[in-house]
Amino acid sequence: MASEASIVSGSRRLLVRWADGGQSEYPAVWLRDNCHCSKCYTAGSIHVRTLLMEHLDVDCTLTKAELATDSQSISVSWSDGQVRPNSPLPQLSSDTDYVSVTRTDDHAPLTCFTSPQLSTDAQSISVSWSDGCSCSFPADWLRQRAFEPGPQRQRAALHRPDTVTWGAEMAQSLPRLPYELVMSKDAAMLEALLNLERYGLVLLEGAPKRPGAVRAFCEKVAFMRTSHFGDEFTVRVKVDPNSIAYTGNNIEIHTDSCYYDYMPGIQLLHFIVQYEGKGGETQLADGAKVCEDLRREDPQAFQTLATVPVDFKNVTKSDNGQAHFKLLKAPVITTDSEGALQCLRFTTSQRDSYFSVPLDQVEPWYKAKKKLLNMLYDEKYIIKRKMNEGDMIVFDNVRLVHGREPLYESEKVGERHLEGGYIDWDEARSRRRVLQERLAGNPSGYGF
Amino acid sequence: MASEASIVSGSRRLLVRWADGGQSEYPAVWLRDNCHCSKCYTAGSIHVRTLLMEHLDVDCTLTKAELATDSQSISVSWSDGQVRPNSPLPQLSSDTDYVSVTRTDDHAPLTCFTSPQLSTDAQSISVSWSDGCSCSFPADWLRQRAFEPGPQRQRAALHRPDTVTWGAEMAQSLPRLPYELVMSKDAAMLEALLNLERYGLVLLEGAPKRPGAVRAFCEKVAFMRTSHFGDEFTVRVKVDPNSIAYTGNNIEIHTDSCYYDYMPGIQLLHFIVQYEGKGGETQLADGAKVCEDLRREDPQAFQTLATVPVDFKNVTKSDNGQAHFKLLKAPVITTDSEGALQCLRFTTSQRDSYFSVPLDQVEPWYKAKKKLLNMLYDEKYIIKRKMNEGDMIVFDNVRLVHGREPLYESEKVGERHLEGGYIDWDEARSRRRVLQERLAGNPSGYGF
Repeated sequence: MASEASIVSGSRRLLVRWADGGQSEYPAVWLRDNCHCSKCYTAGSIHVRTLLMEHLDVDCTLTKAELATDSQSISVSWSDGQVRPNSPLPQLSSDTDYVSVTRTDDHAPLTCFTSPQLSTDAQSISVSWSDGCSCSFPADWLRQRAFEPGPQRQRAALHRPDTVTWGAEMAQSLPRLPYELVMSKDAAMLEALLNLERYGLVLLEGAPKRPGAVRAFCEKVAFMRTSHFGDEFTVRVKVDPNSIAYTGNNIEIHTDSCYYDYMPGIQLLHFIVQYEGKGGETQLADGAKVCEDLRREDPQAFQTLATVPVDFKNVTKSDNGQAHFKLLKAPVITTDSEGALQCLRFTTSQRDSYFSVPLDQVEPWYKAKKKLLNMLYDEKYIIKRKMNEGDMIVFDNVRLVHGREPLYESEKVGERHLEGGYIDWDEARSRRRVLQERLAGNPSGYGF
Repeated sequence: MASEASIVSGSRRLLVRWADGGQSEYPAVWLRDNCHCSKCYTAGSIHVRTLLMEHLDVDCTLTKAELATDSQSISVSWSDGQVRPNSPLPQLSSDTDYVSVTRTDDHAPLTCFTSPQLSTDAQSISVSWSDGCSCSFPADWLRQRAFEPGPQRQRAALHRPDTVTWGAEMAQSLPRLPYELVMSKDAAMLEALLNLERYGLVLLEGAPKRPGAVRAFCEKVAFMRTSHFGDEFTVRVKVDPNSIAYTGNNIEIHTDSCYYDYMPGIQLLHFIVQYEGKGGETQLADGAKVCEDLRREDPQAFQTLATVPVDFKNVTKSDNGQAHFKLLKAPVITTDSEGALQCLRFTTSQRDSYFSVPLDQVEPWYKAKKKLLNMLYDEKYIIKRKMNEGDMIVFDNVRLVHGREPLYESEKVGERHLEGGYIDWDEARSRRRVLQERLAGNPSGYGF
């Protein structure tokens, strides 16, 4: 509830006092930029600001600010952001996100997002600007967008939920869900995607033991991320008892496709046939956790890995015969503005023989990289799990490292058959938001 | 030509003196990491370091360094990096990148990349390390990888060529090539891709006036970048003379899909049918040039746009009915480590009504954004060109802004039909490198 609306700061800001004691200030130019009159904003199936920035007066001032309270009214939230009492009620059905109706008081068709409801605080604040335009902002709408930490944190969680870093204890509490449930129920898919964002991994169990489950999951989320290997990739390890050397093979922990400027964000590995002999455990460690600890324990090593650019390289041919020659300079650790891990480029085989840095950075870099490797392999951090057939492990490829224990028993003949694929974080987060809004019965994200 | 090889710095470095007077130092650990004996490196159709980092002694020292010169010998460059005199010569054909042959002196099959040639400086430097391994490095190979600015600049150009920023004068010197030539000749495709990297744009002329040319080009390069709109998108503007308002529509200059963490890198627009009336010119301006100038003329405005995170948003549905809800916080200008433009997020319609920054950053941000907008529209910087039917403009979507002049004549009935699409920079640069190496007859990028 707002208790007062006034113009302050030389007419450059709107001040709203709230009934609970707080107050919020809104710049006139931001209000003007978000005017949702039919000249400045288009509602309907798309919702976009149509006021071009070339027509926005960034020095505009407020000429009017009035608080209107319509208590005990029937209110409808319209797509133009206004909550109007006694609105004409459209036919609403529960299985559509919105209904487009023609308002009697407006030329443009508007959209109603929420069911009409009895409201005791249908308040709005009408403002006018120095350029002659005017608009009525719902008080609730303004409060959600207040320039203060509280409401901003709430919105930030819709962007990206807080992540939770982990060590080896994760082996006992691996987030897991039945594959079929995730594929059939929105709530299960939402839980899977939230776990993936928070912990960087989720295990889907009981997927059909045949190719296709990776694509089906990705297309439920959005679409597969293509790389120069194509969409799906197949990992088949045929144990050849004539080659003892082979069975000892260790796949060192790594992140995939480090030579891509935009690395595949999420990796999926579906275990169709598992190796029957001793060994073959999947290894996973949380790079975010280990980098956090490295930064505290050895800030110099962290700094080295976060600044020295490494030459990554991949030269290969696609199945269609196309040649590819990827090169990229980037540090092992990319951090966000707060110094936390944003992207981990961890590979031995796909580093170039070129290392284009000043000579004195070379030795410290190797020591720092080895230190990070040893930490990631430390029993404090790494989890090892022999996946079951039908398991699909989905994990953050720019945060977690993954590897595989050697296949120790050369005499155990058997195929290990995995299907893998990628999906981008942009798409996975988008699907999570759609499901969050849909399941919360709160489609406001779709509105103004 | 090397004149001397010796061990220095407490056995931690190799010193090579060159016959022309210079000298280069190589860390023992870097040499060890790049040992290409058959235990540490796998040649063949893939070329990868198989020495795992967990087995790399980052404190290793050198125990031997010997220079060997075999003048006037027949030398063959092998995929293991060694140039050996009097090598057994495999059958070479000109249409393969490499030939795999079994060496008599080695168990693993090796690969010959270049034709055997008479060489006067087939030199190699044999080194041994404290862990017992040893390897022979060709002197040329070492010199190319010297830890000095000269050779490093040469390699950097293969990563990314220098860019050239431009203003309105570009209208007179637009890089242009016939579409069919680019599609049929490697040299023309290389020129197109190099122009795209240097200037951020290239105009392909005379493409077939029907859908499909965008996909054909992308698949010649690699593959299309999918977004939630699918692969290709269609821009059809049907001028409806009953709606005067519509004909005045201006598409404000912008970059596409700013709400994607990984924005589409390159945009293609193919003009199948052009609007016949007055207006409809395509507008393009070089964000890199304008940001360069803004940074010099108004460092405070530049700093504001490079640091204040903006809320970008897109809510839409795909043709298949899937809902999408993209949100992203990012500054308008993302810079590289040297402060130059790396990515420009320039949009009015796809900014969220939420602006989650401290109150005092709001007004300065609007002023700075408006200043950048005015500069981009300035006649000093913007080019306007009414594209011909059959034109395909290909441009850097994270560097250039693009817009469209209004369609002024409502009485001119006619369809404007464009087909568009995206391709990622990772793939375009990769294709350019493949073509550069292929056309230079220098497939060394494929080797060790």
